[in-house]
Amino acid sequence: MKELSKLMDYRSDIRVVDATLRDGGLVNDFYFSDEFVKALYETNLKAGVDYMEFGYKASTELFDEDKFGKWKFCKEDDIRAVTGDNDTDLKIAVMADVGRCDYNHDIINRSDSVIDLIRVATYINTIPAAADMIEDAAAKGYETTCNIMAISNAQESDVKAALDILGKTPVNCFYIVDSYGALYPEQLARVVDCFMDAAAKYGKKVGIHAHNNQQLAFANTIEAVGDGADWLDATYANMGRGAGNCAMELLLGFLKNPKYRVYPVFQFIENYMVKMKEETTWGYDLQYLMTGLLNQHPRTAIQFTKEKRTDYTEFYKELVAQD
Amino acid sequence: MKELSKLMDYRSDIRVVDATLRDGGLVNDFYFSDEFVKALYETNLKAGVDYMEFGYKASTELFDEDKFGKWKFCKEDDIRAVTGDNDTDLKIAVMADVGRCDYNHDIINRSDSVIDLIRVATYINTIPAAADMIEDAAAKGYETTCNIMAISNAQESDVKAALDILGKTPVNCFYIVDSYGALYPEQLARVVDCFMDAAAKYGKKVGIHAHNNQQLAFANTIEAVGDGADWLDATYANMGRGAGNCAMELLLGFLKNPKYRVYPVFQFIENYMVKMKEETTWGYDLQYLMTGLLNQHPRTAIQFTKEKRTDYTEFYKELVAQD
Repeated sequence: MKELSKLMDYRSDIRVVDATLRDGGLVNDFYFSDEFVKALYETNLKAGVDYMEFGYKASTELFDEDKFGKWKFCKEDDIRAVTGDNDTDLKIAVMADVGRCDYNHDIINRSDSVIDLIRVATYINTIPAAADMIEDAAAKGYETTCNIMAISNAQESDVKAALDILGKTPVNCFYIVDSYGALYPEQLARVVDCFMDAAAKYGKKVGIHAHNNQQLAFANTIEAVGDGADWLDATYANMGRGAGNCAMELLLGFLKNPKYRVYPVFQFIENYMVKMKEETTWGYDLQYLMTGLLNQHPRTAIQFTKEKRTDYTEFYKELVAQD
Repeated sequence: MKELSKLMDYRSDIRVVDATLRDGGLVNDFYFSDEFVKALYETNLKAGVDYMEFGYKASTELFDEDKFGKWKFCKEDDIRAVTGDNDTDLKIAVMADVGRCDYNHDIINRSDSVIDLIRVATYINTIPAAADMIEDAAAKGYETTCNIMAISNAQESDVKAALDILGKTPVNCFYIVDSYGALYPEQLARVVDCFMDAAAKYGKKVGIHAHNNQQLAFANTIEAVGDGADWLDATYANMGRGAGNCAMELLLGFLKNPKYRVYPVFQFIENYMVKMKEETTWGYDLQYLMTGLLNQHPRTAIQFTKEKRTDYTEFYKELVAQD
């Protein structure tokens, strides 16, 4: 059991990362209105959120700028149009995917940028490329995290080897990403344990990014908190790919540091997310449970959702047949 | 951490209780079609569910039979119309509320009934009345549980005293009922621990009935499993009062006993619950998070839902003003 005194107290090392624009952008191809983004920024300030992830630094060679909203690319001027020089306690993050980011060119020096944190996203088999991106970003002055995606599909021994590589880089935080929403809290506890061991060895932090395929994104996030993870991803109203993420309103309700305030989150949801929910679709549904249960990428479930199918059992048969 | 070998194995003492008609009945005043109830019964048989709760044994003196569907009253003939003599492995349960059931008269001898289990629901302050109902039902030949509601509002010392009273009755299982959906898994672990101590002392089982106000009904249920609880309530598609309950489809996906089969649950949801969702409203929403967070009865949130209000922040102000 978690230590009782800790349940009443808080760790000042906790960092809450708002990933609404980035993971939510996967739902609407990053077409957020300027008003929405500005209001989200203001809300994060009021709510005491530590980092706001604006989106991806995606390669304009690989991705057509006419087919995505601007937060797929997170150009310096677009962020500054929202934040100005961001003379606030809220830090600004972007995600850079291994193989999908021209980081040498597109990530400028931090001294010239309003961005504070580069989050390098990688699968377990491209850790050296991730390490190179981390070295590049750190050399340019940024804080960095390494977000290891699809962790439920990675072998324990591979994870340990990966963390030993990453431990020798300047990365600030090892991130557990349960992309498939496949892990139960009791399993996640072991993953966090493995990450915490490496983090202790190399002086790093551990973070958690959960998906809600089995209605466990919040539960897994607070399980990880209890196990020692400090960096916590959340999105407003769970907005995120497929079944969505850990809800910011749940997380800030749980955290006991008085710097976090849940009321502005409620206001933002009422003013913006209710409408967003009417326009786009995300969140727990049977098709996402199925891919989570089978530890599969949610892409088939997302397609099922897009096609507005409700023949869940037929879908399940398709999934099982693929296995 | 939970013992690793247990995560791969299963406990044969686990009992899954389908509470869809009973807790779901609180959403639609127990007006389920005969076809729905029959199909649910057949599904529970196929899915390997252990108990099916048909509804309440409510007093016809206190409640107007014209204002509720028949599962508010669970008359013998109504159950038999669905189950016949129920010559199956699926046991039949009904709930009897302290103060709302004419149990001396309405609960007949088990030898004359198709019902197997009487679940006595009580608040912490009416334990002697619950004990009397348990004695009555046990003397008539039934299995019994005692479901202690609103556990998040009960003092630990009161719970211990209550379990000492109940321990001396023939009750089979002490049930933790998180009516307000207020508990986090790390808190629930302590409640289960307290219940397990008394259960060990008196030779009883422990059960869990969770609500989804903070998207934790499933997480709390599997937390309780890991802590030793054996009797697990779930409902199809989370159907239940307010934010609903632990979803049967999540629970059976989690449990590893091969006797449980999740596919029939998917079929039932596709064929019946999708339509049910269109006709009635339940499930996680911000108003339920708010009452859960404030450890309040969900009645105000249910009223908010009925009135189709979306002024969440105004509602939050009302709740906080009440405190």
